[in-house]
Amino acid sequence: MGNPTPQDFVNMRVAIEEAEESLRTGGIPIGAALFRGTELLGKGHNQRVQLENPILHGETDCLQNVGRIGSYRGTTMYSTLMPCFMCGGTIVQFRIPRLVVGEARSFPGSGEFMESHGVEVVDLGMEKCSSMMSRFIEEHPQLWAEDIGEL
Amino acid sequence: MGNPTPQDFVNMRVAIEEAEESLRTGGIPIGAALFRGTELLGKGHNQRVQLENPILHGETDCLQNVGRIGSYRGTTMYSTLMPCFMCGGTIVQFRIPRLVVGEARSFPGSGEFMESHGVEVVDLGMEKCSSMMSRFIEEHPQLWAEDIGEL
Repeated sequence: MGNPTPQDFVNMRVAIEEAEESLRTGGIPIGAALFRGTELLGKGHNQRVQLENPILHGETDCLQNVGRIGSYRGTTMYSTLMPCFMCGGTIVQFRIPRLVVGEARSFPGSGEFMESHGVEVVDLGMEKCSSMMSRFIEEHPQLWAEDIGEL
Repeated sequence: MGNPTPQDFVNMRVAIEEAEESLRTGGIPIGAALFRGTELLGKGHNQRVQLENPILHGETDCLQNVGRIGSYRGTTMYSTLMPCFMCGGTIVQFRIPRLVVGEARSFPGSGEFMESHGVEVVDLGMEKCSSMMSRFIEEHPQLWAEDIGEL
């Protein structure tokens, strides 16, 4: 596990706002944002419910919104929750070198897999993120099971 | 590696048609189709060029078109080429139990990773698929490098 910088907490706010926006619009509260230093390249949130789209998790929706930028060198992905294997595989394949997550308590995801492929993974362990997620999972167990392929 | 059935070659035709359609519309010639037995659930192709979308590879475009089907139990994904880590991670996360590829010569992809997560991987080793792909890579090396995160 890598260490966070003060800027990581600032950048993470964008991902948290995305998660909150998703919750407000009836969706799964997971948000993501891609930065290069302090520059925001794009952001997104889970769209399974809103767009009936199973491949748009926070991270993939974010990368779709970022568009074709060529190389991802020097970028950091921020996600409110540890990414699943779809999103972890995407981070590995796109060679995004660094990932900062709000929390990994609600879902272990693909953290070890990403680290074994050289991604620096940082966990901010934010109570705000884990309480939002654990409340959602408790209230919508079926939807959550669907989103992580456990139906 | 698993063994192919005669039906696999029939189903793969749908993925090959998708790859050819992508080539005709100026895109990367990789296609995919999701079946349950002989029932086609959906199909798709790489849309990086056509939609300027980096997350729509053959397999993810296919799954987007399939939509929310709940469980993927009993399904087989067909892809003209061995999937990358984004698409391999998606197959693992969605618990798609079986993957049949047209070829794995042009790109080793995430075959071992998927097998280590219990996915049955079958390689049809089709000359038609590998010649289409190797010609494309030779003619568009930059675009191919972009699509697999090697820029």
